[in-house]
Amino acid sequence: MQSQRVMQRLETLYQLGKKADGTHTRMAFSEEDRKGREYFAARFKDLGIDCRCDSAYNLIARLPGTENGPAIVVGSHLDTVPDGGKYDGALGSVAGLELCETLAASGTKLRHPLEIVVYADEEGFRFSSGLTGSSSFCGETLSISDDDLDLYGETRRAVYEKAGVRLSDFPKAARKPEEIFCCLELHVEQGRNLDRQGLPVGIVSTIAGVRRFDAKIFGEANHAGSTMMADRRDALVSAAALIRQLPKLIEELKGPYTVGTVGTLQIEPGAINVIPGMVHFTVEIRDPESALMDALAEKIRGLLEQVCAEDGTKLQFSELSSHAPAPMSKTIRAIIAAKAREMGIAFTELPSGAFHDSLLLTHHFPTAMIFVPSVNGRSHCPEEYTREEDIAKGLDLLLNTVLELDKRDTL
Amino acid sequence: MQSQRVMQRLETLYQLGKKADGTHTRMAFSEEDRKGREYFAARFKDLGIDCRCDSAYNLIARLPGTENGPAIVVGSHLDTVPDGGKYDGALGSVAGLELCETLAASGTKLRHPLEIVVYADEEGFRFSSGLTGSSSFCGETLSISDDDLDLYGETRRAVYEKAGVRLSDFPKAARKPEEIFCCLELHVEQGRNLDRQGLPVGIVSTIAGVRRFDAKIFGEANHAGSTMMADRRDALVSAAALIRQLPKLIEELKGPYTVGTVGTLQIEPGAINVIPGMVHFTVEIRDPESALMDALAEKIRGLLEQVCAEDGTKLQFSELSSHAPAPMSKTIRAIIAAKAREMGIAFTELPSGAFHDSLLLTHHFPTAMIFVPSVNGRSHCPEEYTREEDIAKGLDLLLNTVLELDKRDTL
Repeated sequence: MQSQRVMQRLETLYQLGKKADGTHTRMAFSEEDRKGREYFAARFKDLGIDCRCDSAYNLIARLPGTENGPAIVVGSHLDTVPDGGKYDGALGSVAGLELCETLAASGTKLRHPLEIVVYADEEGFRFSSGLTGSSSFCGETLSISDDDLDLYGETRRAVYEKAGVRLSDFPKAARKPEEIFCCLELHVEQGRNLDRQGLPVGIVSTIAGVRRFDAKIFGEANHAGSTMMADRRDALVSAAALIRQLPKLIEELKGPYTVGTVGTLQIEPGAINVIPGMVHFTVEIRDPESALMDALAEKIRGLLEQVCAEDGTKLQFSELSSHAPAPMSKTIRAIIAAKAREMGIAFTELPSGAFHDSLLLTHHFPTAMIFVPSVNGRSHCPEEYTREEDIAKGLDLLLNTVLELDKRDTL
Repeated sequence: MQSQRVMQRLETLYQLGKKADGTHTRMAFSEEDRKGREYFAARFKDLGIDCRCDSAYNLIARLPGTENGPAIVVGSHLDTVPDGGKYDGALGSVAGLELCETLAASGTKLRHPLEIVVYADEEGFRFSSGLTGSSSFCGETLSISDDDLDLYGETRRAVYEKAGVRLSDFPKAARKPEEIFCCLELHVEQGRNLDRQGLPVGIVSTIAGVRRFDAKIFGEANHAGSTMMADRRDALVSAAALIRQLPKLIEELKGPYTVGTVGTLQIEPGAINVIPGMVHFTVEIRDPESALMDALAEKIRGLLEQVCAEDGTKLQFSELSSHAPAPMSKTIRAIIAAKAREMGIAFTELPSGAFHDSLLLTHHFPTAMIFVPSVNGRSHCPEEYTREEDIAKGLDLLLNTVLELDKRDTL
């Protein structure tokens, strides 16, 4: 695998995502996204491989196998978050292309068909609904509607129509279990675990589960000058107790990968001289183990209830959503680990804190992910960076894993 | 003084402030404000007293004295905050009217001229600039401009023109020290001190000083799933340390009237799955003593600096504004206290946490304020309420104070 070519293609894709305002954003179904996909499809055409768009806007290049069995699927996404980086999604997609280049250059024929898939709209920020391509690929039902409005007030129907797809056709993209041998995704970690440990590669054990909560604390808005401290019911002071304590609650749990975040918070009425009467915020927790998530959720609820009782404020706390941890295929993980050892590549097994297309794939097909390090853990920003030497190791491990998997008839 | 008539007039004024949406708001220079002022002027006309509008839109009724000395000024404001209550400002204005009614009914002639003043635009929410009437009355320079836009995007120039005033004429409203003998204001406390102590009356010692600060904490926005707790620089977690600790910092100071409030807070980027990279908030502190305010400001800055250093976040902290405490006239306070004792009215001296027109008046003229209790400390809301029996005592104390002051030639 030629890591230099991969780096060049990542740079080209990044530049194709450049917008008039100077930021680099390949928003799903945007002009930049279309340009990226066209570039990608053109490279497959150069290799003499046909690239089709399925009914859920996934881009699929298929290399027939010498036998007519189920396909090995390698892929990721090409869409990005606003002003995102060069590597998130794009690396896994370009790695699939590079795999075909390498196989073609060496004249290697796989027994299994090989499908390189660019899953559509992974990030999901345009309509606040991600993973639509991989969901449809897996045959999952989407809770989205033609009438959803995007960031710019355009309907999903209109956006899809311009892209040449229809939501009602999405179920046609579903793949049967017998069609798919396994799914592989190479991705940047987006966290600091590998970078901190100086490891070039990680094998994903599980995609962490996520539980999201909506909290409202009701106090009493009052004059910030004439209301003495003892007479206050300040909703923000109650909320602050949880926000400050959350890292400590997590520390007490001693789960190495537990995280919790208050990412949004609004105050009412929100005036410099008025005591906050209401605070609305969200709490998100993630962990590779359901039991730890459940324990943390109870600690959070308990702390909020206690603080609000002490402060004389009122709590409204409800769950917004819950996703169980999604473990990757043990068999494929073992194969990747064995290959890495053979190749002398240092690695660790670690969970993914972030969502990926593989989150859905793993519920339907044997699936695994290879991580390469994100320098300083930065991602979803222009500073996102992975060293070429690490990418080279990830690519070669991916290739050797595919070659090894290709020898098998069952997993 | 007839408290029943005062209560009726407060109710009438409240109803004149009723808007199409059902709320009661006498915003400065609005249609409702005009109606309230017309009602007020009409009552003076009934008494045969002329009411003029000065060049800063203050409404002034003047009752000549038997001697041509400086005037005793009694007044407050009629404008309200959005959906405010019946008593804030209106009580002090109607009390001035009631004083004239009582003097007229008993045929009492004062030696000093008596001026009842309705100060314009005390609340200041329309243009985010209050106390414009009393500032001009005192001859203070205003830092406002004809081009300022109000809440609805209308210029100050246009709003003032409709009211028949011009900003350039405001300095003409300035009163000379030799024209004013003293200023008195009856007002609802807007806090719970009197209500908690079961006292019908309070004599204001000082209007608390106010210092306002602008704080920004810069952390690092990052993925809430893949960024481990140890790798985070969460700006909101740093801010929460101050917000939760602020009541304790104040308690340690042991100032009976110290207050501190974080009333506004915004997060960037503000997404459920992104670690807050920046938090922008305000801190307001008030105290009747400058030294306590200064000590608290240092504690706040110190705590923020320490927390941000520990958390690896960066602090930007600056002062937005600073108003020194404004003590009321000791001589008049002593006169009011002596009268209250004579009349058997229980009272206490206490500071005002809120701003009033008297804040400016006291820097230029001997000034004092009488407070009556706000039930449960509620103010700036429809629940604002003061019992008639307490208002009756406040009115009689005001009358007797005026009669006592009228005997004097100097203060």
